[in-house]
Amino acid sequence: MLTFDTAPDRYRHWKLTFDGPVATLAMDVAEDAGLSPDYKLKLNSYDLGVDIELADAIQRIRFEHPEVHAVVVTSLKERIFCAGANIMMLRGSSHGAKVNFCKFTNETRLAIEDASAHSGLKFLAALNGICAGGGYELALACDEIVLVDDGNSAVSLPEAPLLGVLPGTGGLTRVVDKRRVRRDLADCFSTLVEGLKGKRAVEWGLVDRVYPTSQFKDAVQTRARALAAASDRPATGPGIVLTPLRPTVTPDAIEYSAVTVAFNRDKRTAEMTIQGPADAPPASGDEVVAMGDQFWPLRAFREIDDAILRLRVNELEIGTVVLRTTGDVESVVAMDRFLAANQSHWLVREIVLFMKRTLKRVDLTARTFFAFIEPGSAFAGSLFELALAADRSYMLHDDDEENAIALSPMNGGPLPMSNGLTRLATRFLDDPAKVQELLERDAPFNAAEAEEAGLVTVAPDEIDWDDEVRLAVEARAAFSPDAMTGLEANLRFAGPETMETKIFGRLTAWQNWIFQRPNAVGEKGALKAYGEQGRPEFDWKRT
Amino acid sequence: MLTFDTAPDRYRHWKLTFDGPVATLAMDVAEDAGLSPDYKLKLNSYDLGVDIELADAIQRIRFEHPEVHAVVVTSLKERIFCAGANIMMLRGSSHGAKVNFCKFTNETRLAIEDASAHSGLKFLAALNGICAGGGYELALACDEIVLVDDGNSAVSLPEAPLLGVLPGTGGLTRVVDKRRVRRDLADCFSTLVEGLKGKRAVEWGLVDRVYPTSQFKDAVQTRARALAAASDRPATGPGIVLTPLRPTVTPDAIEYSAVTVAFNRDKRTAEMTIQGPADAPPASGDEVVAMGDQFWPLRAFREIDDAILRLRVNELEIGTVVLRTTGDVESVVAMDRFLAANQSHWLVREIVLFMKRTLKRVDLTARTFFAFIEPGSAFAGSLFELALAADRSYMLHDDDEENAIALSPMNGGPLPMSNGLTRLATRFLDDPAKVQELLERDAPFNAAEAEEAGLVTVAPDEIDWDDEVRLAVEARAAFSPDAMTGLEANLRFAGPETMETKIFGRLTAWQNWIFQRPNAVGEKGALKAYGEQGRPEFDWKRT
Repeated sequence: MLTFDTAPDRYRHWKLTFDGPVATLAMDVAEDAGLSPDYKLKLNSYDLGVDIELADAIQRIRFEHPEVHAVVVTSLKERIFCAGANIMMLRGSSHGAKVNFCKFTNETRLAIEDASAHSGLKFLAALNGICAGGGYELALACDEIVLVDDGNSAVSLPEAPLLGVLPGTGGLTRVVDKRRVRRDLADCFSTLVEGLKGKRAVEWGLVDRVYPTSQFKDAVQTRARALAAASDRPATGPGIVLTPLRPTVTPDAIEYSAVTVAFNRDKRTAEMTIQGPADAPPASGDEVVAMGDQFWPLRAFREIDDAILRLRVNELEIGTVVLRTTGDVESVVAMDRFLAANQSHWLVREIVLFMKRTLKRVDLTARTFFAFIEPGSAFAGSLFELALAADRSYMLHDDDEENAIALSPMNGGPLPMSNGLTRLATRFLDDPAKVQELLERDAPFNAAEAEEAGLVTVAPDEIDWDDEVRLAVEARAAFSPDAMTGLEANLRFAGPETMETKIFGRLTAWQNWIFQRPNAVGEKGALKAYGEQGRPEFDWKRT
Repeated sequence: MLTFDTAPDRYRHWKLTFDGPVATLAMDVAEDAGLSPDYKLKLNSYDLGVDIELADAIQRIRFEHPEVHAVVVTSLKERIFCAGANIMMLRGSSHGAKVNFCKFTNETRLAIEDASAHSGLKFLAALNGICAGGGYELALACDEIVLVDDGNSAVSLPEAPLLGVLPGTGGLTRVVDKRRVRRDLADCFSTLVEGLKGKRAVEWGLVDRVYPTSQFKDAVQTRARALAAASDRPATGPGIVLTPLRPTVTPDAIEYSAVTVAFNRDKRTAEMTIQGPADAPPASGDEVVAMGDQFWPLRAFREIDDAILRLRVNELEIGTVVLRTTGDVESVVAMDRFLAANQSHWLVREIVLFMKRTLKRVDLTARTFFAFIEPGSAFAGSLFELALAADRSYMLHDDDEENAIALSPMNGGPLPMSNGLTRLATRFLDDPAKVQELLERDAPFNAAEAEEAGLVTVAPDEIDWDDEVRLAVEARAAFSPDAMTGLEANLRFAGPETMETKIFGRLTAWQNWIFQRPNAVGEKGALKAYGEQGRPEFDWKRT
C-alpha cells in the first residue's frame, strides 16, 4: 500500500537546504530507490516516489519555513538537471497508474504556482544541465528559468517524437499559455528530440536567461535573492511542524483524528466522515502558530487530503464516495469566520490555501462523490464546500427540521475551484446576484430552505430517505466507471477554463487517450519500443 | 468514397419546407437509407449521412433563402423526435470513424449556433416526441426548445448509463455551460435513462416550454414567428444557388476550380494548392448576388471546406498536408478589403461567416498542416489565415526578395478561431500592440520581414530551402499519428477557452478516450452489449 508520508530526514531523492531567505531543493535521485525494483531511476529521472518527496518539500517550506522567500530548484548531478519521468516506469505501469501519476505530478506543479501566486514564495529553476521532458515541465512551473550555457545543456520535450505520448505534466499548455511561446515555435520545439540550448532557448522564450558555467552559481544566487526580495512572507520564523498523520489502517478502514474512511468493497463504495471542530476558534493568528498542525482546519484538511490520495492510488475499484460530516454547524461557521478575518496572517493564509488545494484535489478525483446531510452533521462553510464539490447532495428533510446547513465567508471567495470561480458561483453560473444573496443570509438553512435555494440536490423526507440514498448509490455503482469519469470531468467545471483546467481537461484527456492507443502502449508502440531493439511500428491512420 | 454533396431534392432523411420567414426542417429518417446496410436507422436515429443532409440544409437556408428568419427543427414521425446517433452504427464503426462522425456532427451544431449568433437566423427545436441522446443534443444547439407535454415525450441523455459512453455532441457542455443547468441536476439528468418530461424538464432548465398536444402545433408557429421577428436578415429573397462542386477525382488527386489536392500516399502527405482570385473585386454586394457561388471567396472556400472533409473521412493515412497558394498577393488584399467593407450586406456576411467556419474546420482537423510560401504564391489576408492556421509556415527567402505575404483587414477580426481570438491575436498572445502594428502596415512583407515580425516560422534561403522543407515533412511523417493529434490539439488553441473549444477539447478528448476503453468497446463493453443478450461486464477500476 502506497502512502504519501515522508519528511526531509527520510528523503531519498532530494536535498533541502536553507540559506536565509533562499532554500535550495536539489534533485539527486537515488537510482535504486524507485517505488518498484523493476526500473532504475537513472539520470535524475523520476517516479511517483520522487514526486511525493517534492510535494512534501514544497509543503514543508510553506508551513515550516516562513522565513524562506524563494526556492532554487536544481540538481546535484553533474551536467544533468532531470531526464523527466522514468520511461521504464511508464512502460511497466498500468493505464490507471500512469493516469494517477500524471495527476499527482500536475497537482504538485500547480502547488508551486499556487505558492508563487498567493503565498509570496517564488521559485527559480536553475538548470545546471540537461533538462528533458518532465524535467522541463518542472522548470515551467517555476517563476523563472535559468540555464547553464555550456554548449551541451538543453531544454527539451522529447515525449511526442521519442515515445509517442504527450508531455503530460502541463508542458504543452505552459509553453503556449504561460510562457506564450508562439504555437509554430512550440510545435518545432516539441518535436525536436534534442531540444534547444543557449541563446536560442532564450530567443524562443523557453528559458529566461543563460549563463556560462563560470558565472552560473553566482547568477543563480543573485536571481534567487532578487526573487526573494519581492516576497511578503515573514522576515523570520518560526514556522510550525507538520507531524506525521499516522492513521490507523485496517483492512476496511482508515482512521485519522478527524476523518474516517470506511470501505465497502463489495459495493465498491466508501464512506468518508469528517468531524467538525470541537473547540471555539483561537483569538489570533499567533495562537494558531502555537497550536501548530493540531489546529482543526489544518488537521482535518491534511487528513482529507491524505485520504483522497490514498483512495486514488490504493482503492481503484471504489467508485463512489459518500461524504458525511459530524459536529456542529455553528462551530464550523465560527472557525471559518476566524479564518476569513485573519487571512493576512501568514499561517492562516497558508492554511486557507491548503484547504483550497485539498478541495481542488476532490474536484479532480475520478470518483463519484455524494454528500449525505443528516441531523448531527456539520455541513457548513468550508465543510459545505465538500457538498458543493460532490456530484450530488442528499439532505434529509427531517420532521422536526433540525437538520441544517450553513454558509460562511469561506464560501464567498477564499476557496475557488481551478476554473477561478467559487463553487457557489459555478453552481449558479447565470445568477451571481443569487450567490450574493445566499452569502448574506446570516442563518442556517433547513432542508426545505436548502432545496428551495438550490444548495442541495434533493431533500427526501424520512419515509423516502433510506430508499432514495440507497438506490442512488446502487445505481451509480452499476454504471461504466469510465463513462462516469468522463461525465464528471465535463459537468464539474462549468464556466471559464483557466490554464489549470486546460491542463486537467484538454491536455490530460488527450494524454489519457494516447495512453490507451496501440501506437503508444501496444506491443510495437513507441513507449514499448523505446530503448529496445527496433523501431516502433505505427498504425498510420490519423484520428 | 464518401462525399458531402447533396441537395434538398436528393434528401432521404429531411423535409425542408418554407412558409414566409419560417422554414421547417423536419426529420424523417429513412430506415433503409443509412450509409451502410449493416444497420437500420430506426426511430429517427442517425448516421453521418443524415447529418450531411442536415448540414447542407442549414447552409442552403443561409445562402439560398435570406428571407427565412427562423427555422423549426422537428420530426415527421409520430411521437418520436429523434433517438440520437444510431447505436448499431456506432458499434460497427472503427475508432476513427466514430471520432470523425462526432467531429462533423459537432461542427454542424456549432454552425446552427453561428447562424443564430451572427447571421440573424434563429432555431426552434420543436420536440414532438421522444428526444434522446444526440436528438437532445441537436435541440440544445437551437435557440429555444419546446416539448410536447403528452405524458410520454421526454428529453434524455442516456449514453452514459446505457452505453457507457458520453453524449459526445456537446450535450454535457451545453447543459451546464449554455443552458447553465446546475451541475448536480445535470448529473442526475445525464444518468437517468428515461430522462425528464413535462413541467420538471422546464423547472430543471432542460427545455424552455412545454405544451399539451392540442396546443403544440400552434404554439410552435407562434414561437417561431416570435424568433423570426428579431432577425436582421433581408425581408425578401432572392438568395443565391449553391451549385454542386463536382471536382475531378482521380486516384491521386481531387481537382476543383480553385483548389487542387494531390496525394503522395507513399509519403503519407498531400499538397493542397489554392488559387487566388483572378478578377478585381465587384463594386457592390448586389454584384456579389449576381455572381452567386462563382464569386471567388465563396467558390474557393467551399472547395477548401469540401477538400478538408473528404481528406478527413477518405484519406486516413495522409498525416501531413502541405498548403500552397498561387496567384497574386495584391488581388487577395483587394478582395479582402471589399469583403471587410461590405459585411453589412447579407450575402457578404454569409460568405465571410462561411470562410470563418472553413478555417475553423482546418484548425480542428487532426492532420499536420505546413504552409510553404514561395514566389508566385498568394498568402495574403484571408489566404494567409491558412498559413496562420498551419502548424508551421516555411517562407523562401529568395535572393531577389520578390516572395511576399501581406495582411488585410480580414486578419483583424472577421475570421476568429473557436477560442474567440483572431489567429494573429492567438499567435502573439502576450503582445496585442504588436498585432495592431502589423495590421496597420500597408505593404507586403518580404521573407526577412515576415520572419522578423514572427509571421512565419522560418525563412530558409534558396540553398537550404529544398532540404529544409523536405526534412520537415519526412520527420513529421515518422512520428506517431496519435501523438501528433494530441500535440496539435494542445498547441493550436492557446488563450481563452470557449464553449466551442470546450466541446472539442475537454468533451471530445474524454469521449475519444472512452471510445478506446474496453468498458465501452471491448467484447463485453456497454456499447457492444447494448441490445444483445446479457449485461455489459466492466473492469471496475476507476481511472
